[in-house]
Amino acid sequence: MPDMRIRTDLALEARNSITEDNAQIKGIKVSEENDSKNNINIIKMEVLNRYASQTIGRPIGTYVTMEVPFLAEEDDGYHREISKALSCQLKNLILNCYHWNDSVPKILVAGLGNRSATSDSLGPEVVNNLMITRHIVEYMGYDEIEGAFAVTSAIVPGVMAQTGMDTCEIIGAIVRKTKPDILVVIDALAARSIKRLNATIQLTDTGIHPGSGVGNNRQALTRKTVGIPVIAIGIPTVVDATTLIYDSVKKNKVEEPIQVSEEFRQMYVTSKDIDAIIKRVSYTVSEGINMCMGYSGVPE
Amino acid sequence: MPDMRIRTDLALEARNSITEDNAQIKGIKVSEENDSKNNINIIKMEVLNRYASQTIGRPIGTYVTMEVPFLAEEDDGYHREISKALSCQLKNLILNCYHWNDSVPKILVAGLGNRSATSDSLGPEVVNNLMITRHIVEYMGYDEIEGAFAVTSAIVPGVMAQTGMDTCEIIGAIVRKTKPDILVVIDALAARSIKRLNATIQLTDTGIHPGSGVGNNRQALTRKTVGIPVIAIGIPTVVDATTLIYDSVKKNKVEEPIQVSEEFRQMYVTSKDIDAIIKRVSYTVSEGINMCMGYSGVPE
Amino acid sequence: MPDMRIRTDLALEARNSITEDNAQIKGIKVSEENDSKNNINIIKMEVLNRYASQTIGRPIGTYVTMEVPFLAEEDDGYHREISKALSCQLKNLILNCYHWNDSVPKILVAGLGNRSATSDSLGPEVVNNLMITRHIVEYMGYDEIEGAFAVTSAIVPGVMAQTGMDTCEIIGAIVRKTKPDILVVIDALAARSIKRLNATIQLTDTGIHPGSGVGNNRQALTRKTVGIPVIAIGIPTVVDATTLIYDSVKKNKVEEPIQVSEEFRQMYVTSKDIDAIIKRVSYTVSEGINMCMGYSGVPE
Amino acid sequence: MPDMRIRTDLALEARNSITEDNAQIKGIKVSEENDSKNNINIIKMEVLNRYASQTIGRPIGTYVTMEVPFLAEEDDGYHREISKALSCQLKNLILNCYHWNDSVPKILVAGLGNRSATSDSLGPEVVNNLMITRHIVEYMGYDEIEGAFAVTSAIVPGVMAQTGMDTCEIIGAIVRKTKPDILVVIDALAARSIKRLNATIQLTDTGIHPGSGVGNNRQALTRKTVGIPVIAIGIPTVVDATTLIYDSVKKNKVEEPIQVSEEFRQMYVTSKDIDAIIKRVSYTVSEGINMCMGYSGVPE
Repeated sequence: MPDMRIRTDLALEARNSITEDNAQIKGIKVSEENDSKNNINIIKMEVLNRYASQTIGRPIGTYVTMEVPFLAEEDDGYHREISKALSCQLKNLILNCYHWNDSVPKILVAGLGNRSATSDSLGPEVVNNLMITRHIVEYMGYDEIEGAFAVTSAIVPGVMAQTGMDTCEIIGAIVRKTKPDILVVIDALAARSIKRLNATIQLTDTGIHPGSGVGNNRQALTRKTVGIPVIAIGIPTVVDATTLIYDSVKKNKVEEPIQVSEEFRQMYVTSKDIDAIIKRVSYTVSEGINMCMGYSGVPE
Repeated sequence: MPDMRIRTDLALEARNSITEDNAQIKGIKVSEENDSKNNINIIKMEVLNRYASQTIGRPIGTYVTMEVPFLAEEDDGYHREISKALSCQLKNLILNCYHWNDSVPKILVAGLGNRSATSDSLGPEVVNNLMITRHIVEYMGYDEIEGAFAVTSAIVPGVMAQTGMDTCEIIGAIVRKTKPDILVVIDALAARSIKRLNATIQLTDTGIHPGSGVGNNRQALTRKTVGIPVIAIGIPTVVDATTLIYDSVKKNKVEEPIQVSEEFRQMYVTSKDIDAIIKRVSYTVSEGINMCMGYSGVPE
Repeated sequence: MPDMRIRTDLALEARNSITEDNAQIKGIKVSEENDSKNNINIIKMEVLNRYASQTIGRPIGTYVTMEVPFLAEEDDGYHREISKALSCQLKNLILNCYHWNDSVPKILVAGLGNRSATSDSLGPEVVNNLMITRHIVEYMGYDEIEGAFAVTSAIVPGVMAQTGMDTCEIIGAIVRKTKPDILVVIDALAARSIKRLNATIQLTDTGIHPGSGVGNNRQALTRKTVGIPVIAIGIPTVVDATTLIYDSVKKNKVEEPIQVSEEFRQMYVTSKDIDAIIKRVSYTVSEGINMCMGYSGVPE
Repeated sequence: MPDMRIRTDLALEARNSITEDNAQIKGIKVSEENDSKNNINIIKMEVLNRYASQTIGRPIGTYVTMEVPFLAEEDDGYHREISKALSCQLKNLILNCYHWNDSVPKILVAGLGNRSATSDSLGPEVVNNLMITRHIVEYMGYDEIEGAFAVTSAIVPGVMAQTGMDTCEIIGAIVRKTKPDILVVIDALAARSIKRLNATIQLTDTGIHPGSGVGNNRQALTRKTVGIPVIAIGIPTVVDATTLIYDSVKKNKVEEPIQVSEEFRQMYVTSKDIDAIIKRVSYTVSEGINMCMGYSGVPE
């Protein structure tokens, strides 16, 4: 087969692409939770040691893949269930990495991506709908947010073409200055398969790594680089053009090696109604985060 | 070869895809004008009779293709030259279809497409920068726009998913009510070749035809359907995903027929920096139209 | 007292400004419904005859004023109650003017105002969140929207400075072409009192009249001008600068007549957090309309 | 006279409000440069010592006020002259505070304000049009920007209600991390007089100070707080509602003291066509900055 690099931001895809040819990988623990009534399937993959990490090409940590096949469709009841499930998964990851003391955790949410490019605007759009409370606590005290699970701040750093700076430089600087306990980053991802497009939510406590996705030059956002736990929430909204061609050819069992010209590498594939999808999905994710933080828009 | 339908909005591509296999088509007159200093190549194709029209699959009329290879790049001087050339070509098409009497023509500009989806927002963005004068003339008289080439009004009708109405229903109704002499429609197009992406401006006096582009359900905007001459200005900003796969396979001389699954048909391919491209290009087009209408942003 | 014209879009304010000095007006029937638990007060005023109409300076018809003092505040539960109440009031007005036959009513919603000016963007923002179904019915039949109260289409016409056309020309033309049964227009209003700002929703079946609000040149949108019933939903988001000065001086019991210079007439007054208010309120209104049309985002 | 605090971001207004009653202030040097052909009047005020600083209530430093009476109007030729003049004034301020060594200065531009509130979106809109080169230099070296006056990066930090953080915390952190030589901040200002609205550009090398403008809680952005020279560029786009009332009453020579109620303090006054003004003016400012940095959109 051709030496084409498979670009994917999805850990589960990375695993699948390996296990297709190999046996069960040691040091990887997978559990599944199926809410068939609500069409939500949650796969939790734990990469437990260095061997597993190297085999799968992903850092040690927890990867939660929520398979939500109708995420792109208009159904408020379904989206509410997704928000609830997301809230629950996010809370688990936070509880896992925050050592409770006498105060609630301070969480900085970073909406990555380009707000001017629809398919890349998931992060900025999610931040747009978040309940922000850090300034309220700073100026009026904790009593104002009584009962909340966390204190929240947020930043939309922009992309390098707009700022001239690496995203991780900007976020790292703000973390050092404002001292949150946990960083949550939201980003639109590139999937390998069109089937996963707008149908999967991935959460991980391993942060964001360079080259794992569409391969732009931003550096890593991890506990190592920013000094605090980093939880990443991502949804695949585009497929790399190169991947699309490769997959299509493979499906058709074409035997010859395929050369993909350079111009394709600057391209991505997205849905024709991506604007409506991003609007709906970003609201679902922001509601999930708001619920997790204790600001619920949903009646019990 | 496979029975894959080749979707393209570009008349020149349609012709090339035929002439690759055939000889010169009768009833098609092509002239070329090359401004090599400014890297602008203008190809004027006239489809003169029914035979030519059927062979090429395009209506009788004039098609101007401006090849502007660096349209997507940041170079204000180059963009100014493109605006000037576009202004000139648009004026020729208007002069060709407007019978002068004692007043200047009234022109309605329609910015088609979806302002919420970056790669489809060319039309709305162009309209955003136009000098609009119809209301000034209505309320204060022609003296207020003395020296202008035309009186301008504009509409951004939205797309069917937003309005529930066909674009041509909306525009047709406004034409009947406000009685412009000429309709100019601006739209983002689908190209067959990635090479033409953001590198071509097409003008035609044949309007817009269903199925010639990405094949959505809107009906035609032509002299026949709206009752006045329709000049269309289009720039290819996306490539159909199906086309991309087809082209890629063809380049690699794969012999087997390719089947493309249904899900690909809801996809398109676009550049990673489409937001910056649309911003720049829409400004260049709106400046060209403003110049043509006699409201020049460019010093002599 | 000074000869300053009092500009207000709110019928109730018009009435109050008269009844302050006069006795009860004949031919005006007022009823009140108070949901004190939810802090929603609904005042229904019916202007029954020509005498009442002339006294109050408003056309014959029904005016529903929803007093919702915390509309600008962030409280999802409260906003849901407002959406429900709005849905109910809108349904009453529709039932009042639609003669049922074998099919559901076709409703065109027009979002008036300027989407680029935050305080004037209520109408466009509301339309942005509406469920639109006309094209679904047209292409796939009524079965697709089984159980819905109405078939919906929508238009954001833009403002005259952007289009060169009167808003009522555009909407009138679309009504004639697409033949809806009822027109619902959404608009940001000018209030006389800062206290009413973002704290009142007004519904009326009398449409929109020139000069009743901030006094721009658009003509009327009424049953008479468009040929079908017109229901207007408005929320005051600005106060005329002239009015502000007048009110302030009056409150301070300044006796001298005040001259307000011309430049103030091009100004309006709005809240410092108008962007957050518009975002919240437009969602509440669109949810109310969606509920009324049978597309509920709210679980029973 | 009433004890009403006069809120103004404009240094010249502060001076005028004093000199109306007092004689010439010592330690303040004022020079004027009048380009009557182009309707641009430039007033340079230097506050030279502590006495002058205390009298006028502004820090020691240089204040350049460009009076550009037709800034809000559509005239591309005029706007180009303003861009040129602004470029020139900005360059002077930079040259004044940058000690040249072997490399060009690294400049971080911060677009303050709220991109979602039209009248407060000047800063974000200006940044939107800037040529950004820092990443090009970082990844490809200085040769790529040969001839440029400076290396540029930019940030749109958002407002506290969106981020939960003080603007100066965010910018301070980014300055410390990315080490620019000079910070340029762009902000929409509050003027005292409607006459100055959209008719003045102010540049100063003293940065931004709390309480000098509409009085929100963000702290200072000055050489002292961020560690590098801070040049602020501001344009008044709103008038405080309180100020409006005060001025109006004063003009009418009302003698009684005026009490302005608390609700007015959350209000501001702006023009009815603020969206078109911000669009035009932000482009003019960004062109001025681009020219200054050596990326000229204007042919020689």
